[in-house]
Amino acid sequence: MVKIAVLGFGTVGAGVVDVIYDNADIVAKNAADKIEVEYILDIRDYPDSPFAGKVIHDFETIINDDSISVVVETIGGTKPAYEFTKRSLLAGKSVVTSNKELVATHGAELIKIAKENNVNYLFEAAVGGGIPIIRPMAQCLAANRIDEVCGILNGTTNYILNRMINAGLSFEKALAEAQEKGYAERNPAADVEGHDACRKICILAALAFGRHVYPEYVKTEGITKITLEDVAYAESDDKVIKLLGRARRVDDKGRAYVFVAPHLVSRESPLACVNGVFNSIMVSGNQVDDVMFYGRGAGKYPTASAVVADVIDAAKHLNARKYLSWDDGDASCVADLSEFKSKYYVRVSGDNARSAAIDTFGEVKFLSCADADSNECAFITDEMTVSELNAKLEKIKNHVALLSNMMVL
Amino acid sequence: MVKIAVLGFGTVGAGVVDVIYDNADIVAKNAADKIEVEYILDIRDYPDSPFAGKVIHDFETIINDDSISVVVETIGGTKPAYEFTKRSLLAGKSVVTSNKELVATHGAELIKIAKENNVNYLFEAAVGGGIPIIRPMAQCLAANRIDEVCGILNGTTNYILNRMINAGLSFEKALAEAQEKGYAERNPAADVEGHDACRKICILAALAFGRHVYPEYVKTEGITKITLEDVAYAESDDKVIKLLGRARRVDDKGRAYVFVAPHLVSRESPLACVNGVFNSIMVSGNQVDDVMFYGRGAGKYPTASAVVADVIDAAKHLNARKYLSWDDGDASCVADLSEFKSKYYVRVSGDNARSAAIDTFGEVKFLSCADADSNECAFITDEMTVSELNAKLEKIKNHVALLSNMMVL
Repeated sequence: MVKIAVLGFGTVGAGVVDVIYDNADIVAKNAADKIEVEYILDIRDYPDSPFAGKVIHDFETIINDDSISVVVETIGGTKPAYEFTKRSLLAGKSVVTSNKELVATHGAELIKIAKENNVNYLFEAAVGGGIPIIRPMAQCLAANRIDEVCGILNGTTNYILNRMINAGLSFEKALAEAQEKGYAERNPAADVEGHDACRKICILAALAFGRHVYPEYVKTEGITKITLEDVAYAESDDKVIKLLGRARRVDDKGRAYVFVAPHLVSRESPLACVNGVFNSIMVSGNQVDDVMFYGRGAGKYPTASAVVADVIDAAKHLNARKYLSWDDGDASCVADLSEFKSKYYVRVSGDNARSAAIDTFGEVKFLSCADADSNECAFITDEMTVSELNAKLEKIKNHVALLSNMMVL
Repeated sequence: MVKIAVLGFGTVGAGVVDVIYDNADIVAKNAADKIEVEYILDIRDYPDSPFAGKVIHDFETIINDDSISVVVETIGGTKPAYEFTKRSLLAGKSVVTSNKELVATHGAELIKIAKENNVNYLFEAAVGGGIPIIRPMAQCLAANRIDEVCGILNGTTNYILNRMINAGLSFEKALAEAQEKGYAERNPAADVEGHDACRKICILAALAFGRHVYPEYVKTEGITKITLEDVAYAESDDKVIKLLGRARRVDDKGRAYVFVAPHLVSRESPLACVNGVFNSIMVSGNQVDDVMFYGRGAGKYPTASAVVADVIDAAKHLNARKYLSWDDGDASCVADLSEFKSKYYVRVSGDNARSAAIDTFGEVKFLSCADADSNECAFITDEMTVSELNAKLEKIKNHVALLSNMMVL
């Protein structure tokens, strides 16, 4: 029997315990051993829970119990998750987590400590919720040089954008609806400002390119400025607006372009077909070309599904190191975007907007929007670097007002 | 150093050798050891190949060389692949293959032999080419009871259907184009009749439900009867026609509905967005809900990418058994479809076709097709079992001619 402790009896923690007992036979078969939840650590009591008897309040009980070989951390945030994770690893216990903030902030150090103590730090659930992505990237694509990772990494913003596109709701109305449905927090900043997607692309970039990417170095733009006019202009060219986290390989030293921003995505792309709260991650390898992983990026049981898969994996490798590893990183790991090439969506307003567009960008593809003011226009440029774009935007601003611009995928 | 032998220097075999040397550093890093191709077995010589010196013609050389720990079988078919694979496993060598026909025909036996000899028989490339699916299902979804697997498993037929849908080509014209482009064989039966998709769904069903599923028990229908009228009727309801391999769990004894047939798929489904020669596999788990895996289902390097990932895995587990396993199966593993529930597309021709449809099926959703004869009609039924459908089809045939019918996803 493999005894585990679950830290944090919130939504995900409770889901993990449910899955372990609801699917006990399947879990035992796949782990080739019975998994038993010995302790559930939480500051609260849960007298009405069938697992009330397992709930404790003192982490020391867990750290001092040598029979606990795997610790599941579903507290979230960095305090006290960081300390509990570090101490568990140092005590020779493998740790499984769904905590993207902790992995994105302290992942390199915690992976190193796990390695030094011959235990595992696993976090399949930290990116894409229930979607298998960490292990497939590390194992199934092991014959490839990863060139790019690009994904819809936040279900809340994807839901909001979908409602703007399909129901014509304004950003504010779509956000309010998402909050009503429980898809968005009362304070939605972490989602709508792109910070949640940022943490996830940092983890994927580290896995793909071998160096830790710290969120503070990653240019992050959310969806709060997207308007229904932008949505309509995109639609007129058979495109949809998606918030993408992207990481593109620059060199062999682990340097990459890493950023989060809204994009116009062609309906031809499978990423355009990702609806509602679903997530999807496209990975490009130099041999396999594009592969995509799709599923529920959040939610109690999808996330628990990924956590328990890692618990099973940890239980099967109690005395063996897993593949997951990357080196520490710094500001130099994130390449300046100025040389990043893309096509762009640009929307300007003013007299002779169209001629200003042509004078500045040359041949462009104009888009249409029934509800737009007659003196504005939007268009898609040829491919150019970000610095070339910025130079042209500065120039065109001498003649018209810049309303919005986005990359085109 | 891990020495391997490659059996068959055709497209995939050559791709495997290329990937191992083109990505040598990545492969060595991920395998934590250097991978060296010692022998390439083929009946032909390849004097112009940079690997000409490795080409041999006698399998005995490989079987008698104890330094060879992994054998890659990319011969295809069952003769001599079956014998070579069996003897390699009995000799204590792990075997990696892309040979879906062999896995679908003899997989249970070969997995058993591998287990008895404490080596591995790995076949990620046998389903979905470069798409990670076998390992993610076995590991990442290990906490789930798998309820259904449903996928676009054949790129050739998906390309043909796409061209019928997007370019208005007839089946014959689209097939001819696929043959010109090298997407379809000169004898396209294995693809267009659904046999290739059948082998793949058999392997996925065995992995999902634990019992080997032999292709001969699986009802398999191809796309040769699909017409442009069917495509247009589907389009009028915002649906596309896709050839799907499906396996749905019936009970805990490994029984499942397993079949291959063209379906009408709503454009809302991510499966509808799979274009060209790409494949996509949807897996439904009782905790994770739907997850989907998308990528190139065939091709030299995508397939080689999956084969080499397995070679890396085998090299890392020379003395350890992997997870992959299922028991042998028989006719009883494939449940009779009569109780399978679905909505259906039905197209009939004759005087009063519409009233015959209503008299027989009650309230139905009629579809439209500009080019169809005035005396025909097509519609979508409510959900009912296959036996209920067949009874109604028998009844309606007393009044009108049945032109076509398909399941609706």
